Amino acid sequence: MKAIIVKPPAAGVQISNVNEKDLSNYGYLKIRTLYSGVCGTDREVVNGKLILSELPKGKDFLVLGHEAIGKVEESYEGFSEGDMVMPVNRRGCGVCKNCLVGRSDFCETGNFREAGIVGMDGFMREQWYDDPRYLVRIPKSLEDIGILAQPLADVEKSVEEIFEVQKRVPIWSCDDGTLNCRKVLIVGTGPIGVLFSLLFRTLGIKVWISNKREPNETEQILLEEARINYYNSVNDYEELSRKVGKFDVIIEATGADAGLITKILPLLERNGVVGLFGFPVSGSATIDFKSIQQIVHANKVFLGLVNGQKPHFQLAVSHLASWKTLYPKTSKNLITDTVSIDEEKEVLKILKEKRRGEIKMRISWD
Amino acid sequence: MKAIIVKPPAAGVQISNVNEKDLSNYGYLKIRTLYSGVCGTDREVVNGKLILSELPKGKDFLVLGHEAIGKVEESYEGFSEGDMVMPVNRRGCGVCKNCLVGRSDFCETGNFREAGIVGMDGFMREQWYDDPRYLVRIPKSLEDIGILAQPLADVEKSVEEIFEVQKRVPIWSCDDGTLNCRKVLIVGTGPIGVLFSLLFRTLGIKVWISNKREPNETEQILLEEARINYYNSVNDYEELSRKVGKFDVIIEATGADAGLITKILPLLERNGVVGLFGFPVSGSATIDFKSIQQIVHANKVFLGLVNGQKPHFQLAVSHLASWKTLYPKTSKNLITDTVSIDEEKEVLKILKEKRRGEIKMRISWD
Amino acid sequence: MKAIIVKPPAAGVQISNVNEKDLSNYGYLKIRTLYSGVCGTDREVVNGKLILSELPKGKDFLVLGHEAIGKVEESYEGFSEGDMVMPVNRRGCGVCKNCLVGRSDFCETGNFREAGIVGMDGFMREQWYDDPRYLVRIPKSLEDIGILAQPLADVEKSVEEIFEVQKRVPIWSCDDGTLNCRKVLIVGTGPIGVLFSLLFRTLGIKVWISNKREPNETEQILLEEARINYYNSVNDYEELSRKVGKFDVIIEATGADAGLITKILPLLERNGVVGLFGFPVSGSATIDFKSIQQIVHANKVFLGLVNGQKPHFQLAVSHLASWKTLYPKTSKNLITDTVSIDEEKEVLKILKEKRRGEIKMRISWD
Amino acid sequence: MKAIIVKPPAAGVQISNVNEKDLSNYGYLKIRTLYSGVCGTDREVVNGKLILSELPKGKDFLVLGHEAIGKVEESYEGFSEGDMVMPVNRRGCGVCKNCLVGRSDFCETGNFREAGIVGMDGFMREQWYDDPRYLVRIPKSLEDIGILAQPLADVEKSVEEIFEVQKRVPIWSCDDGTLNCRKVLIVGTGPIGVLFSLLFRTLGIKVWISNKREPNETEQILLEEARINYYNSVNDYEELSRKVGKFDVIIEATGADAGLITKILPLLERNGVVGLFGFPVSGSATIDFKSIQQIVHANKVFLGLVNGQKPHFQLAVSHLASWKTLYPKTSKNLITDTVSIDEEKEVLKILKEKRRGEIKMRISWD
Repeated sequence: MKAIIVKPPAAGVQISNVNEKDLSNYGYLKIRTLYSGVCGTDREVVNGKLILSELPKGKDFLVLGHEAIGKVEESYEGFSEGDMVMPVNRRGCGVCKNCLVGRSDFCETGNFREAGIVGMDGFMREQWYDDPRYLVRIPKSLEDIGILAQPLADVEKSVEEIFEVQKRVPIWSCDDGTLNCRKVLIVGTGPIGVLFSLLFRTLGIKVWISNKREPNETEQILLEEARINYYNSVNDYEELSRKVGKFDVIIEATGADAGLITKILPLLERNGVVGLFGFPVSGSATIDFKSIQQIVHANKVFLGLVNGQKPHFQLAVSHLASWKTLYPKTSKNLITDTVSIDEEKEVLKILKEKRRGEIKMRISWD
Repeated sequence: MKAIIVKPPAAGVQISNVNEKDLSNYGYLKIRTLYSGVCGTDREVVNGKLILSELPKGKDFLVLGHEAIGKVEESYEGFSEGDMVMPVNRRGCGVCKNCLVGRSDFCETGNFREAGIVGMDGFMREQWYDDPRYLVRIPKSLEDIGILAQPLADVEKSVEEIFEVQKRVPIWSCDDGTLNCRKVLIVGTGPIGVLFSLLFRTLGIKVWISNKREPNETEQILLEEARINYYNSVNDYEELSRKVGKFDVIIEATGADAGLITKILPLLERNGVVGLFGFPVSGSATIDFKSIQQIVHANKVFLGLVNGQKPHFQLAVSHLASWKTLYPKTSKNLITDTVSIDEEKEVLKILKEKRRGEIKMRISWD
Repeated sequence: MKAIIVKPPAAGVQISNVNEKDLSNYGYLKIRTLYSGVCGTDREVVNGKLILSELPKGKDFLVLGHEAIGKVEESYEGFSEGDMVMPVNRRGCGVCKNCLVGRSDFCETGNFREAGIVGMDGFMREQWYDDPRYLVRIPKSLEDIGILAQPLADVEKSVEEIFEVQKRVPIWSCDDGTLNCRKVLIVGTGPIGVLFSLLFRTLGIKVWISNKREPNETEQILLEEARINYYNSVNDYEELSRKVGKFDVIIEATGADAGLITKILPLLERNGVVGLFGFPVSGSATIDFKSIQQIVHANKVFLGLVNGQKPHFQLAVSHLASWKTLYPKTSKNLITDTVSIDEEKEVLKILKEKRRGEIKMRISWD
Repeated sequence: MKAIIVKPPAAGVQISNVNEKDLSNYGYLKIRTLYSGVCGTDREVVNGKLILSELPKGKDFLVLGHEAIGKVEESYEGFSEGDMVMPVNRRGCGVCKNCLVGRSDFCETGNFREAGIVGMDGFMREQWYDDPRYLVRIPKSLEDIGILAQPLADVEKSVEEIFEVQKRVPIWSCDDGTLNCRKVLIVGTGPIGVLFSLLFRTLGIKVWISNKREPNETEQILLEEARINYYNSVNDYEELSRKVGKFDVIIEATGADAGLITKILPLLERNGVVGLFGFPVSGSATIDFKSIQQIVHANKVFLGLVNGQKPHFQLAVSHLASWKTLYPKTSKNLITDTVSIDEEKEVLKILKEKRRGEIKMRISWD
């Protein structure tokens, strides 16, 4: 069957005809692939830059792909033929308590596997077999944007964890019982930044999103429709601080240089949280003793945010569904383009580099 | 201006021309009424059966109506002319801490007011002035079913509280981290029963809904589209218990005879919750010592559920928005009919009695 | 070896010489028994009144005893020869998630065992072998009252669960951040009532304790030293309600007639909790529709409370230790008397009936 | 009356006779001072090194002292003549919600005051008047070590907050339901380090405590009695990491150089928390991009920890009471010495510099 394969740590990607028996499967429910999503992590694997990427044990290649929607081929354990499903991409270590209760986002051993990335064939192939435990139902009405449920699941988990952590503050809600008075700064306007901003807006929170340039046209639609504020950070964050004040939550969603953390720290409000989502690839965060005093004195938190599990996929499905009603124009822009697996050259191209203005690219397999 | 008025504790309702100065207002933001929802509580007031209903202080009539959508007439404090808004119907006592933080659903004094019911003119009038603190934004795309955000807010609060209470159980989630293995029985198929069932389904939980008859056509659509189970309880609950086993959550949403509680108690699973939402109007619940032993022995809970506040209205808006995508056929059936305020006879009729097969009736004011 | 054995469901108790090989053990850590506590449940088993009591599988007798302190005979897995330990009395079903994480107080299957009561030999014998997982360290300085850690563990779990449930109330703490303004009524002055009252006082809460008589001398010391209020409920609760008002928490700790619940319900404050701890042995609680309306309207809760596990034993040890400092006179009264196992007649007598004015009776084995 | 006064930002301290009318009071309950505790922060004020120290508005001196025990002189609002009390040292801003609910440890405005440090006369004076809201009852049996309730309150709040934050981890408890398997590293062996280690031990957690030298005699008693591990970090933390592995919680309690954070970070376990308690006075923490990746990837947290409020003082009283039973030898060593206010020269000396081997120094006023 056709599959997109990589050979980490080597760079490179190819569309191959692979023998069914050379591919790993994870259960007995047969799924035919409909769509794959392409994400920055895929490109890091393809370009040989993701150090933690690992071949499945005893194999010399890895099927790429951790964002997928498929169609159930044979009814099985609560799923019916024709149902659309999305696989959860991280699979538990099988040993620790958190993995046993379906929460390998908090795996204690670190021995989880990640489809298409670490030690487990991904879903960029014509079909696979899986375990219903790891499958999330995607309603037909979400065929268009449902592929975003995977990255959005990571964002859902992050926001859930931030709110969980803020329960340490006796009253963090506003005078009207909501969180509408709280302000969030999201640094980075990639797909993750966009999903964070839509989710925080859905929850009523005031959102600022920043990048080192003016917003593009697609972003303008998002900003207007969801009433999000934009800040051009090309000259750093002082102007933002002066005009808007401090932020209750700051999300680092660039995965750029770690030095960014030093710059955004002064914008954090008392009792606030810096959520670290992006994987920085260079530099260092330097926090001087006066800033540490401020962290101590004002109950500030730094929080590493990673991976959503099945409950977060389900939340993501519900929020995507709501956005089609709440933010209809933005919803239509979320999928930048869909490329057929038959257009091999174009598929390989989008796997290697980001398309200009891209939010999310899809490969269709049908 | 035109207003629908009642004079509790006397039965009766009329559409009157009332002098603006005889009506209470709650702030400076001018709102023109678009829609009013009609609910069972309105009919209890109209029929002189709601003992707790109270005139505003020093007044001899009460404007009815606690479910409303209006249009902002003049921009003010974050709201712009033309924005659609819904008022929060319960207003705080102004004294206790919970009211001060916008959570008068947990008012400690009991001195809150309820629009159109207790001591505060409601919203069945052409326009009113309100405080932005108590206004919830309704997106244009929810003009059709947004009126349900008020009753759904009560349901959102209830589900939130049930989940909060279940945090007492060290692990209440399922093997896959979700709540998909949990079973809920909702007793009563009125609008509240329908909203509970849709909300629990959105959260992945297995739902049974029961009434003492076969489901009607509208209910059939709901059951199929949202994969909800139905039980005809005309011969009590033994068959259900035998076939399906016990339930982790049971919601009493009939407001019928208190004796029902005695009947549903044996269906409650270990560590389970009975959520009491309906206001019973007759009878008694009798719980014998062996049942009390079971409650003690198996960590069972009875929980009174009442009133959603602004955060729950916002959740309700988001869920209604998602349902248009997730349950499109059901969404179209949620508003049974809209009657213009100019059809006075019909308006008075729907205020006095439920229409056959009704889920939610609306009055339009425009 | 010497052991106190029963043969439920038959009444009767005897001190026998039992062959070591006829006794069940639970691990490899050898423990020599120092003290056994005698509790109401033991007497129910002895008097053939505890229906749920069960013989160990395939056995025709049961060793009694679920409150014990022993001395480690051989160092093993973190415990050293000479350490004093107390066994956790309920052991998990081995299947459900809550049991797997050491919280069989919330066992989902109901297939747990209870030492000396349900399907598992207890600790009224000269020695046994156990699993360190189920052993709690008792410091030497608590040899005198440490036996109370078992019943207090049940009380610790109950209070923890009540507080957990009250997190549903946005602000349940007082103006000064404590719970000092909250009022608890404890119905019943047996050992459980005494332990509840001391624990709530340690936490700063105002406590009323009631029984259908005037307090005895020992109770007078407790009331004065821990500043606890007493109410003689011989003429029901109306006077209490009139004088003191309503209670935020009411603990049913009598295990008498279920009808008591009907009587105490009107004393429950808005947002309050009735904690059901006692096992009623007769009667029914009748709650009429108006009371149900009150439960719904005012967010009231009924909560079944049962069984503490290892974390609660550890809390109990810490609180007992604090009480020797905080309530020194009361602490000296908590153990009413210690009877040597060699005084067989007296041992059998205290196993059959409560001694007048008793709080806790101990059997010494050394 | 006699008072110990300072004039920040100037260095210096003196024992003066001050006119009653020149001193600030906070309520109507008259308290005669029994003991003052001396703490590192007092010495920083005295030595002119605490930048944030501030005179009370419109005054040219500040009464020192934030750790005090006094005797109630006249019965008032629930307190009786002769009761021992301790004042809560931080007082709310009067504006933000957290201060209104008695939790100015999470003050949102930062406009709180700190007795003897920031804008509010402290308690190193013969007597003062206070508001019962800010007074904590100290039982007579804690007259010896009760002065520690103030610093311990800060530690109680810290541990409470760490546990609150760890609720983000689905299962953070051990197989037996306790936290006994969790490992804490406390960096610093000053009074705060000692209090953290005793509190974590009381909760069952495994504790390592470190300093850049071998433990002294007093520390040896603590280590043995409370079964605490010691690590001499003179050659950094590699050996500790190699021998013991990683830690679930690391407490920075030195207040030394911020660079220490860089060194301890590699010892943090997956899902772990670094609690920042000490106020570093020099240097910077540098966290390179690979360490940031680890924080993200493994759900790690940095958490600023500051100030306990009245609920934490009450917990502190209960824990101090328990330690007299659980750790009797250590308890006797906690107060290093008591110096009478009449020994002026010695009082001034201990206010300027730490005594060798000191845990806590007291001044007696009686």
